[in-house]
Amino acid sequence: MNPATREIADDAATEASDALALTESISALSTGTFLTVHGTLKHDERVKLGGTEIKIGSLDIAAAADPETPIASDSGMDKRMDWRFIDLRQRRNNLIFRVQTTLEHAMRTYWVDRDYIELHTPKLMSSPSESNAELFSMEYFGDQTAYLAQSPQHYKQMAQASGFGKIFEIGDVFRADPSFTSRHATEFTSVDAEISWIDSHEDVAAMQEELLATAIAAVKEKHGAEIAELFGIEVTVPSLPFPRIPLAEAHDIIAARGYQTPRTDGDLDPEGERQISAHVAETFGHQFVFITDYHAGIRPFYHMRDEKTGLTKSYDLLFQGVEITTGAQREHRIDVLEAQAVEKGLALEGLEHYLDFFRYGVPPHGGFGMGLARVLMLLLGESSIREVTFLFRGPTRLAP
Amino acid sequence: MNPATREIADDAATEASDALALTESISALSTGTFLTVHGTLKHDERVKLGGTEIKIGSLDIAAAADPETPIASDSGMDKRMDWRFIDLRQRRNNLIFRVQTTLEHAMRTYWVDRDYIELHTPKLMSSPSESNAELFSMEYFGDQTAYLAQSPQHYKQMAQASGFGKIFEIGDVFRADPSFTSRHATEFTSVDAEISWIDSHEDVAAMQEELLATAIAAVKEKHGAEIAELFGIEVTVPSLPFPRIPLAEAHDIIAARGYQTPRTDGDLDPEGERQISAHVAETFGHQFVFITDYHAGIRPFYHMRDEKTGLTKSYDLLFQGVEITTGAQREHRIDVLEAQAVEKGLALEGLEHYLDFFRYGVPPHGGFGMGLARVLMLLLGESSIREVTFLFRGPTRLAP
Repeated sequence: MNPATREIADDAATEASDALALTESISALSTGTFLTVHGTLKHDERVKLGGTEIKIGSLDIAAAADPETPIASDSGMDKRMDWRFIDLRQRRNNLIFRVQTTLEHAMRTYWVDRDYIELHTPKLMSSPSESNAELFSMEYFGDQTAYLAQSPQHYKQMAQASGFGKIFEIGDVFRADPSFTSRHATEFTSVDAEISWIDSHEDVAAMQEELLATAIAAVKEKHGAEIAELFGIEVTVPSLPFPRIPLAEAHDIIAARGYQTPRTDGDLDPEGERQISAHVAETFGHQFVFITDYHAGIRPFYHMRDEKTGLTKSYDLLFQGVEITTGAQREHRIDVLEAQAVEKGLALEGLEHYLDFFRYGVPPHGGFGMGLARVLMLLLGESSIREVTFLFRGPTRLAP
Repeated sequence: MNPATREIADDAATEASDALALTESISALSTGTFLTVHGTLKHDERVKLGGTEIKIGSLDIAAAADPETPIASDSGMDKRMDWRFIDLRQRRNNLIFRVQTTLEHAMRTYWVDRDYIELHTPKLMSSPSESNAELFSMEYFGDQTAYLAQSPQHYKQMAQASGFGKIFEIGDVFRADPSFTSRHATEFTSVDAEISWIDSHEDVAAMQEELLATAIAAVKEKHGAEIAELFGIEVTVPSLPFPRIPLAEAHDIIAARGYQTPRTDGDLDPEGERQISAHVAETFGHQFVFITDYHAGIRPFYHMRDEKTGLTKSYDLLFQGVEITTGAQREHRIDVLEAQAVEKGLALEGLEHYLDFFRYGVPPHGGFGMGLARVLMLLLGESSIREVTFLFRGPTRLAP
């Protein structure tokens, strides 16, 4: 061989040995290894993922992974929760949180564009925010007891007494709820809004339906195709207004469908909620429905009551058969509010700080609270809020 | 009088008596009463507030206020905190939370535009997120103990092991901190971000300075004039890049200014932070400075160390002399991470869940945590985070 030919042959041999070394080091890699690839991008029609192929020049391994992965994508839910950080590597799980990001940002942008103030209300409180049930408590600097907020209810109303006018908060709330259903957690993200100078709960409902339609449209626009691919779901942007059905009428409709709710307090049970939503889907082609005019017996003392009917000026919002929200006009007249608390058997002393908010003037106001995970679960057709919560917390789940 | 003249006289008498009744009802109103005024808007050059006057037709009182207001705008801070909902009616206090809203929304928009994922990490944990100090704990369903998150540190790193790449969270954190300084609280809003595939803490710093410049520019644009009016502050949009000073050099500069820090661990004390910031303001005309290259003894075990110098790849960000952030590249190599934990005297068992995140591959990453109230306090020239927190929580403050 002449020197030039020998050089080419040597180069070829080196290249072949480099390629072999590279192949061996790739074969040795475990799933989950993070690495940087240097190379050339080549177009090749036969290759999937957009018809591009990488001709690898070199590999830098940033972190090698333990070859024994503790879960697979088809592991049981509890096992997957134990190793949630690996479970979240699945493309569909990654998409869930990108959808959540878009949904939240669209909601906040809707509010900010309309001059709402964003609040961060305290989660440590000296008295319960809702009831004495399902309450986490702890020792606080010796002799004090702190409770974890069950909702921002007190404080978003306080902001109305402060003249804030329109507020929202997306934040954590805590419920010492011993239940194990697919819809309950001991810690979850609550989406809350409260607005002043309303005439009734209808003003709150009108804001919420517009908010949801805006946010779901943003999700469809940004992730619609990927949701269809990974979840097999065609996102539907709801039309406005959402249907409204008074509770009494809802009971008649459900009864006509042949379902009798086992509850004796007049509220809908989960199957009743599914039935009325099925009716709405069949009749109006709509995934949402506001159930209105709940009687006072099944509503908290702070819901305002209609002067003529005595029914509360409140609603529940159902999405695909599941309750995602309670909304209401609040009673802002201190004398009426105290009377309603007493009627419910509550001790006014325990409500002292809350009741104070109403003694120095507060405009008529109302708002809603909405479970973020429930909305996501239903939007993506998932079976449990566990699947759409970054790290679920329940009675037997505090880790990782 | 002819009938027509009598009618006019009667009308005038009625009008005068109506006006008298109106004046009397206005006089009877207490400060803080919320009401709706119906009337005619009149232009009048002599009137303040934009030269408009309302000719009142009628008044609807939505909620009368108790005439005995418990605080005035010049009441002491503790008294004002007791009646925070009245204190927040002051225009400047209202502005604080509109500024906060704009600041946060600008930060989130910066991140969302760059494909960051927004997280809500759990605040209930089975083990401490930072150290065993300043930790709130509580009974959790019988035999378990739950701890309140001191920071989202563990979980924002977990998201990197999950391949989320770039994440942010603005949420509550809890510190059982017994101190009463103007910069500490037992519950506060933490602004956190974490990003993968960085080369050093410098990538984190570069993101944070751009983020802050963007957010402060948004505040100046929307509220600059009102901040100048109510706080006497001209908002300065910081220029990029912010100055950087290695810690050792900072000590030399401070010593040359005649200040000797009393700390023996080599960290800056609050006066040292003020001194170095004063130097930066005088030398570079800048309100921000990154102090870099802290030695490992004064940093947590999870900060990555530079291979050559042994110093951590971390920074503190000072704003007008006050620390608002710690940022760092994290150690992602499990063997190094474990060795650093052991070196710090930590028991690996207690860190089990955290260390697991690094066993199955995780890319190089880093991030920062920033106290929202501190930024607001400094931006508005306030003396304490109590003034810029909706409802402050401290060792002796759990209510309202």
